[in-house]
Amino acid sequence: MEFLKLSEGKTKEVYAYDDSRVLLKFKDSITAGDGARKDILEGKGILNAQTSAFLFRLLESKGIETHYIGMFDERTMIAKKLKMIPVEVVLRNIATGSIVKRLPIKEGEVFEPPIIEFFLKDDERHDPMLNYYHMEYLKLMARKEAEKIEEIMLKVNEILYPFFKSKKLLLYDFKLEFGRLDGKLIIGDELTLDSMRIREEGSGRILDKDLYRKGADLETVKKAYEEFFKRISE
Amino acid sequence: MEFLKLSEGKTKEVYAYDDSRVLLKFKDSITAGDGARKDILEGKGILNAQTSAFLFRLLESKGIETHYIGMFDERTMIAKKLKMIPVEVVLRNIATGSIVKRLPIKEGEVFEPPIIEFFLKDDERHDPMLNYYHMEYLKLMARKEAEKIEEIMLKVNEILYPFFKSKKLLLYDFKLEFGRLDGKLIIGDELTLDSMRIREEGSGRILDKDLYRKGADLETVKKAYEEFFKRISE
Repeated sequence: MEFLKLSEGKTKEVYAYDDSRVLLKFKDSITAGDGARKDILEGKGILNAQTSAFLFRLLESKGIETHYIGMFDERTMIAKKLKMIPVEVVLRNIATGSIVKRLPIKEGEVFEPPIIEFFLKDDERHDPMLNYYHMEYLKLMARKEAEKIEEIMLKVNEILYPFFKSKKLLLYDFKLEFGRLDGKLIIGDELTLDSMRIREEGSGRILDKDLYRKGADLETVKKAYEEFFKRISE
Repeated sequence: MEFLKLSEGKTKEVYAYDDSRVLLKFKDSITAGDGARKDILEGKGILNAQTSAFLFRLLESKGIETHYIGMFDERTMIAKKLKMIPVEVVLRNIATGSIVKRLPIKEGEVFEPPIIEFFLKDDERHDPMLNYYHMEYLKLMARKEAEKIEEIMLKVNEILYPFFKSKKLLLYDFKLEFGRLDGKLIIGDELTLDSMRIREEGSGRILDKDLYRKGADLETVKKAYEEFFKRISE
C-alpha cells in the first residue's frame, strides 16, 4: 500500500489515510493463545473486513457510533482516526471460554442481565482483568467513562442479539475496543468471528474462532466464516 | 470447647455462643499459597485475636461497625452472628503482592486514591478477581452493596493508615470480609498481620505474613507479630 503504516497487529494493519482517517487492512492471519498459535487462512481478511463493515453499518443505522466510514477495497476499511484505549471490553450472554475456567460458572449458563468485563490488552500478562480502580490508576479510562462504555455495550447487545437470533444464531459473547475522538467514546477495531462467539440455535454448532482454538482444520474454519457472512448478509 | 462448632477455616474455628453471637477461636496455624503451605506458630492465635480485637475496637470507636463484641478468653472473640459473604475485599495503598504480578505496576508504586479489589474466596480457583457483574450473578452482593463496601473500606483506611503512620508503620494493603445482619453490611472475620501488609517506615522492614510467604523461619515471623502488637497497643 502506498500509505504510511502506523501500526500492525496480529490480524490487521493500520495506515495513515489523511489527517482524520485511517485505513484498516484485514490480514489473512488467524491466531490463538495470545499469538502462540498462528496460521494463514486465505480469504479470511476479506471475510472479516466485510463482516465488520456489515455489522458496523448495522450499529450505525441504529444510532451507535463506530469508527466505520466506508470501504477502500474489499479487505480494507476507511475509519475515523481514534485515540485507541488498550482495553478489551467483553459482554457475555451465555457462559463459555475463560469465565467458566475462572469462576464457579458452568458452560451454557445464561446471564440475565449480561456480564461485562474489562481486560488489559497485554499478551505477555495474558490480558489480565481490570476493574474501575485499575483503569483509573493506569490512566486507561475514568470510572464515568467505563460506565458509559458499559451502557454502549448493552445497547450494542440489544441490537446484535435479536439480529442474530432472527438468523437462528446465538450470540454467546462479543468483544469491542473503544477509542476517543474529541472527548467522545467511539467503537473502534472490528466486530467479526474473531471477536464474537456465535453458535447455531438448536444444533449448538460453533461458527466462530473457537473452531480454530479447539483445533479444527483450516478448511472447516473458513467454511464457518463464509457461511456466517452469507447468513447475516442475505 | 463446650460449644457447637459451626465451621473451621485455615486459622479460626467458629462456635455457636447463643442465638445472636458466635465465638471465634484463633488457631496457632499459619498458611500460605491457598493452604498449600502450613505450619504451627505457637502463640500466633493469641496474638492475632488480640490484634484483631484491638483494631476492631479502634474502628468501633470511630463509628465503623464490626462484628466485635468482646473477648471470651485470650484467643477467642465474642462476635455478632453475621451471614458472611464469601468475598475478600482488598484495599491497596502501595503496590506489592499479586497486583505487581498481574498488572503493569511495579512494587512500591503509590495508589492515590487507593485501589479496591474483590476476590472470590475459592482456594481451588486461587481466589479469582470479581467485578460487580460477577458478584450480582453469583448472588454475592448487589452493585449498590459493593459500592457501600468500597465506601467502608475507604473509611477504614482513613482510620488505619494515619494510626499506623503514627507508629512509624506503613499500611501497604489490607483485606476485610463482610457479613450481613438485618440487611446491614458489617465487617466480620479478622484484621491481623495475616490480612494486612505492614512495613516499617524508612527501613522497609516487613512485619506481616509476607515474611512467612517469603520463607522466613518461624521464630522471625513470631517476633514480627509480637513486635507489631506491642507497637500498636502501647
